Amino acid sequence: MTTVADLVDLFESEATHDRPSEETPDVGIVMGSDSDLDVMAGAHEALTDLGFEEVTDYDDAPAGYSFESWVVSAHRTPDLMYAYAETAADRGVDVIIAGAGGKSADLPNMTASLAYPIPVVGVPVQEKSVDSVIGMPKGAPITAVDAGKSYNAGLSAAQFLATDDPELAAELQALHDKQRDGVADVSLALHERGTPGFRASRD
Amino acid sequence: MTTVADLVDLFESEATHDRPSEETPDVGIVMGSDSDLDVMAGAHEALTDLGFEEVTDYDDAPAGYSFESWVVSAHRTPDLMYAYAETAADRGVDVIIAGAGGKSADLPNMTASLAYPIPVVGVPVQEKSVDSVIGMPKGAPITAVDAGKSYNAGLSAAQFLATDDPELAAELQALHDKQRDGVADVSLALHERGTPGFRASRD
Amino acid sequence: MTTVADLVDLFESEATHDRPSEETPDVGIVMGSDSDLDVMAGAHEALTDLGFEEVTDYDDAPAGYSFESWVVSAHRTPDLMYAYAETAADRGVDVIIAGAGGKSADLPNMTASLAYPIPVVGVPVQEKSVDSVIGMPKGAPITAVDAGKSYNAGLSAAQFLATDDPELAAELQALHDKQRDGVADVSLALHERGTPGFRASRD
Amino acid sequence: MTTVADLVDLFESEATHDRPSEETPDVGIVMGSDSDLDVMAGAHEALTDLGFEEVTDYDDAPAGYSFESWVVSAHRTPDLMYAYAETAADRGVDVIIAGAGGKSADLPNMTASLAYPIPVVGVPVQEKSVDSVIGMPKGAPITAVDAGKSYNAGLSAAQFLATDDPELAAELQALHDKQRDGVADVSLALHERGTPGFRASRD
Amino acid sequence: MTTVADLVDLFESEATHDRPSEETPDVGIVMGSDSDLDVMAGAHEALTDLGFEEVTDYDDAPAGYSFESWVVSAHRTPDLMYAYAETAADRGVDVIIAGAGGKSADLPNMTASLAYPIPVVGVPVQEKSVDSVIGMPKGAPITAVDAGKSYNAGLSAAQFLATDDPELAAELQALHDKQRDGVADVSLALHERGTPGFRASRD
Amino acid sequence: MTTVADLVDLFESEATHDRPSEETPDVGIVMGSDSDLDVMAGAHEALTDLGFEEVTDYDDAPAGYSFESWVVSAHRTPDLMYAYAETAADRGVDVIIAGAGGKSADLPNMTASLAYPIPVVGVPVQEKSVDSVIGMPKGAPITAVDAGKSYNAGLSAAQFLATDDPELAAELQALHDKQRDGVADVSLALHERGTPGFRASRD
Amino acid sequence: MTTVADLVDLFESEATHDRPSEETPDVGIVMGSDSDLDVMAGAHEALTDLGFEEVTDYDDAPAGYSFESWVVSAHRTPDLMYAYAETAADRGVDVIIAGAGGKSADLPNMTASLAYPIPVVGVPVQEKSVDSVIGMPKGAPITAVDAGKSYNAGLSAAQFLATDDPELAAELQALHDKQRDGVADVSLALHERGTPGFRASRD
Amino acid sequence: MTTVADLVDLFESEATHDRPSEETPDVGIVMGSDSDLDVMAGAHEALTDLGFEEVTDYDDAPAGYSFESWVVSAHRTPDLMYAYAETAADRGVDVIIAGAGGKSADLPNMTASLAYPIPVVGVPVQEKSVDSVIGMPKGAPITAVDAGKSYNAGLSAAQFLATDDPELAAELQALHDKQRDGVADVSLALHERGTPGFRASRD
Repeated sequence: MTTVADLVDLFESEATHDRPSEETPDVGIVMGSDSDLDVMAGAHEALTDLGFEEVTDYDDAPAGYSFESWVVSAHRTPDLMYAYAETAADRGVDVIIAGAGGKSADLPNMTASLAYPIPVVGVPVQEKSVDSVIGMPKGAPITAVDAGKSYNAGLSAAQFLATDDPELAAELQALHDKQRDGVADVSLALHERGTPGFRASRD
Repeated sequence: MTTVADLVDLFESEATHDRPSEETPDVGIVMGSDSDLDVMAGAHEALTDLGFEEVTDYDDAPAGYSFESWVVSAHRTPDLMYAYAETAADRGVDVIIAGAGGKSADLPNMTASLAYPIPVVGVPVQEKSVDSVIGMPKGAPITAVDAGKSYNAGLSAAQFLATDDPELAAELQALHDKQRDGVADVSLALHERGTPGFRASRD
Repeated sequence: MTTVADLVDLFESEATHDRPSEETPDVGIVMGSDSDLDVMAGAHEALTDLGFEEVTDYDDAPAGYSFESWVVSAHRTPDLMYAYAETAADRGVDVIIAGAGGKSADLPNMTASLAYPIPVVGVPVQEKSVDSVIGMPKGAPITAVDAGKSYNAGLSAAQFLATDDPELAAELQALHDKQRDGVADVSLALHERGTPGFRASRD
Repeated sequence: MTTVADLVDLFESEATHDRPSEETPDVGIVMGSDSDLDVMAGAHEALTDLGFEEVTDYDDAPAGYSFESWVVSAHRTPDLMYAYAETAADRGVDVIIAGAGGKSADLPNMTASLAYPIPVVGVPVQEKSVDSVIGMPKGAPITAVDAGKSYNAGLSAAQFLATDDPELAAELQALHDKQRDGVADVSLALHERGTPGFRASRD
Repeated sequence: MTTVADLVDLFESEATHDRPSEETPDVGIVMGSDSDLDVMAGAHEALTDLGFEEVTDYDDAPAGYSFESWVVSAHRTPDLMYAYAETAADRGVDVIIAGAGGKSADLPNMTASLAYPIPVVGVPVQEKSVDSVIGMPKGAPITAVDAGKSYNAGLSAAQFLATDDPELAAELQALHDKQRDGVADVSLALHERGTPGFRASRD
Repeated sequence: MTTVADLVDLFESEATHDRPSEETPDVGIVMGSDSDLDVMAGAHEALTDLGFEEVTDYDDAPAGYSFESWVVSAHRTPDLMYAYAETAADRGVDVIIAGAGGKSADLPNMTASLAYPIPVVGVPVQEKSVDSVIGMPKGAPITAVDAGKSYNAGLSAAQFLATDDPELAAELQALHDKQRDGVADVSLALHERGTPGFRASRD
Repeated sequence: MTTVADLVDLFESEATHDRPSEETPDVGIVMGSDSDLDVMAGAHEALTDLGFEEVTDYDDAPAGYSFESWVVSAHRTPDLMYAYAETAADRGVDVIIAGAGGKSADLPNMTASLAYPIPVVGVPVQEKSVDSVIGMPKGAPITAVDAGKSYNAGLSAAQFLATDDPELAAELQALHDKQRDGVADVSLALHERGTPGFRASRD
Repeated sequence: MTTVADLVDLFESEATHDRPSEETPDVGIVMGSDSDLDVMAGAHEALTDLGFEEVTDYDDAPAGYSFESWVVSAHRTPDLMYAYAETAADRGVDVIIAGAGGKSADLPNMTASLAYPIPVVGVPVQEKSVDSVIGMPKGAPITAVDAGKSYNAGLSAAQFLATDDPELAAELQALHDKQRDGVADVSLALHERGTPGFRASRD
């Protein structure tokens, strides 16, 4: 069995480990509970769509852009949250995506406060989590996506990294273009088949 | 495969095409995604109930009142939205019905701004889309129906056209009268059978 | 003193009066109480901006586009509301703008039902009136503007009339263009003066 | 087929019919659509629990307390609503229970305005109907129950009638006492069996 | 100084006092705090408009319709609330108007439960009190007016009493008619003066 | 059959019974209806997790920490609620957990007022019950948990008792530690298996 | 100037300081900003009304019940919040009252998680803070008062302490009794003077 | 007078202008109306606090980090919004802060769609703008701050730029540290003066 103390030790030891930047995860994904994973998997999907790989072993990290995933509960394991967020910069993380559900979705906020100045994208896992995620006071920045939009959080994290990487910007653009042409296809199909014909063709 | 650019070209070319007014669609129906179609099909139903026909081929348009349907995404294909709305007047469209879902249902608003002075009836596809559809600032008009009420949007579009067409007004009245007598029938049935009898008769 | 019966008589007598179309009001503005007038005056402003004139005497009506204004309470004078709305078509009204406040803003809805197929633009006079104005069932159309946006309701009413009047469409466009250039002016001023300079220049 | 005009005639003819008070319905139940009946049937249930009978034929009315049921749509059949409510007093109705769904639940309000001074108990058929039902302006009274609580509306109607009928008051009290002892039974069962035992006994 | 026990004694002693019905208050007005009085004074205004008089001394009561006013706090003086409500019938009260503010506006609900089968009209003193006042479970009836509408609560209480008193019904009708003609006056003034003229005339 | 009066007698007789403190229930759990039990069972679960036992027979009570469960309806059996709450202190209860559903969740509030100064933890059984449970005026204290969180209410009740009992505090800590390590386990599993692997392993 | 590190040191040093229980603060009051103090001062008022004294110097603490006040920001000084909450038990604090404003009112939640098993009463400083304060997940208990009700939070904290201190319970009862008689006084005054007389007497 | 076309030309000409990266604005601030400037000025404040300078003349740009400010209305000048956003990358802008008020706050969303893959921080200028700003569909990313929190938007924009600039990260940290010590100062002052003393000292 793993204890919270074990993980705290792991993060603190990684922070002192002087790994080259390309071997550390660029994006950290944390969520308050594994019951949030079905919603948070969108961040995994977006980053994977853009060519990022998931780090599952710090000693055997992928070469290009990468990310890692952890469960960290603000209310049940506040010390784990502290350790994760305070060591993030030293562990080489550049952007954090933090998701939580419920009305008191404190994980994104607290992570943003503790990991500052690393930017944190908050993901409200439920509609009722939006207010709590977005409502930070002056001087304590977080940016948030809409409830459940972890796919967009993944894109946003990549956008932040792309401000100084034209290749990543090009990846983002290519992904977008694919989407756009899908809209054009379906639009013409609706027009040419007419409403009843198009609906019938979908069934 | 169709690209967004193909459709932009199509709209721009139609705009320069000098078709006679009776061969162009009177009503344009646009929606943000084909997943909105089940809700938006109500506009098709209402216009069809009033004798309008759907245009599926610009070169082979019906003779009387007609409408067309397109998918146009404000957020994924903003240039397609621009092209559709800015060419609408020149393509002979008189009224637009625009539906979108989500909390940022920008399609109806932006279409209203771009197609102005053509009137646009906004259809919030979900309850949470109402605020975003209706909330335009002074000087940027849109009128909206309630969430999901695309059937009423179809009736409203016809009402606008009927302000100078007594025959279309008569069609609208006839459709209404049929409805009214349905209410009278069911009302008397409830009264005469009594509550338990009426409920039993429905099962 | 005027009684409700006096006004009912007036509307019914006007309905039988066979006035030429250009002498009747094109737009009717009704509101639930004169306490709504400060909000509803926006419709007057928009229509006046577009060259419409207010009819204050049926026997001495203006020659061009015109509108009329009445107080009609759904809850305190339901018979007056009926008489106004049911005679509207026969009195030559083409579009109605109906505003009401409170949570039970029934005037726009009931007017839309009674005056049908004349299109009615509902104006929720207060934020809390929006739901009640917009929420009509299938088959009972109304279109609505946002709370307090009676100016836009005036523009929308004109848009409906302009579907077959290019001159009115041109008036609408001209009014819009003036607005747009105001935005450009202020935008350049902000940019060139910078934020502190611009704010100082406004005080 | 029945037309709206047929029912309007029926109400107006009943209003001139001088039936003895004990042969007319004491309570009128109206609803905007027969799709509201499953919710509104609670009023039937409560009145029946109190010994009221449903009138299904004006010429063959029950001897004691009675009620009648009709479908009346504010938005689709406003003239039917007028006729029903304006003749209610002359037809011997003492209290009206009016239910409607949607956000523009105008039927209870308009009925209260038209049938005044007969008291009307408004029943919001859906949660979103509450605001529209309850929000009447000063001078236009209605009282309302909570969404879907038509059973309580039936009790309330009886309470109004019982202000001058001790026997009916006793009926109301007897119905209440039965309920109270049901609470006592279940309370002792929970206590004595304990939480797990009680839950098991329910399955 | 008066204690809660003094008032409990007073209500209990009045309950055993066999006063003739015309000497007891027909309507009881209770509110949770004297800070609610500015809102609740509307009930006083309506009843006074209808000819009711306020009872301020049980031994010197007015002859006709009358009402009484008390402060009774559900949360701070629950025993006073019990005593008031449970003795109401025996003290000759026929209808109770109960107002409370805050989100836990328990006074109207609890009074309705304790004074049953006397009908209680709940007055939510603030907007946020509406849900709590209206939300009673099946079998525990209350009817409510909108937030702050104590004037309408006064009218409703009179409507309940008027179900068997044609004279009181006539009083209610007369009050209403005055209101209606006021609407007609202002409506004609707006029409004839036009919007700017009417607004100027009000200032 | 049990009557409300029987239970009132039971509570009053227990109140005069001079049982030693260790034989009386430390925590009282009350709810407005047995339909609330599935939600309220969380309090049973938490207290049981901490070693409390349920009292089902006052004459045969467990030796250590204990609690009791009753159904008490504020609106249908207000006298039962009074008797329960007013005798609580004399019956040896130290903390009450009170749950109710609906919008008028008066049971927790009224119990808090009547049992004062015993602390009451209010449990809103539904989301819509939160406002009504929490909204007490100054001077009438209650503390509440979130909708449906009766498990936490059980923990909180134990926390109040633990302010002077280090052993109970240790029980609370031990229960917490178990939870924490569960988070650590799942966190490491997610990290090491990666998102797709972890999701697959759950199915 | 004081740094966050200075305060962290202070709390940690106090935690190792073995002061006798009667010299340590029984209640800790923390708030997210000194702009919350006007709202949070109610806790000070309630505790002072009950005879508690404020500790302003750990080396010169009052003899009886006492409390302390600190500003601790979850988002701007998360390490200070950790130090305060994690040392609370060792510093002799028995109950914490934690208030915060905004939509992300994390201070009460995080304090409850960190100081557990010490009970924390959360005070939402603004209406919009309620959801965030109350919405804790299963296993992470907090109890909350309504927005701005810090006075009640003070009473509740005392209620928790009074579960094993009959004298403090008596203090709570005495404070309550004073309040009750105030209600009785004002109630009789309203009744005897009548509504207009009473209102006049207040001005 | 400036026209919209003039500004469109300006942006398009700047886009073709091959300025060195250090002479172009790093951050673009746009808002829907100059009435939003009082709220949006927070972004100016934050960026200035971090050493950024405002560009007011493209030909005379500051050397270090810089930003620019423009008014761009989505609904009144959609073509200006297009031109601004589509040229942003070519004009050297790396991050955009876009603020808008009202319920249809389309500017941030549309700018995010048009300027993609440049990251856009949306600022809802009013509380009611939050939903519309945050609610983007899958594949159309935006991140948002809370209503009115343009200061935080400025910090976030800098955080994005700092992911590859340790010096800017240090600036962000230094600004934060100043804030933290302010909290420590006020916290100790509250503790040492006590609540009444501290409040007195503030007045």
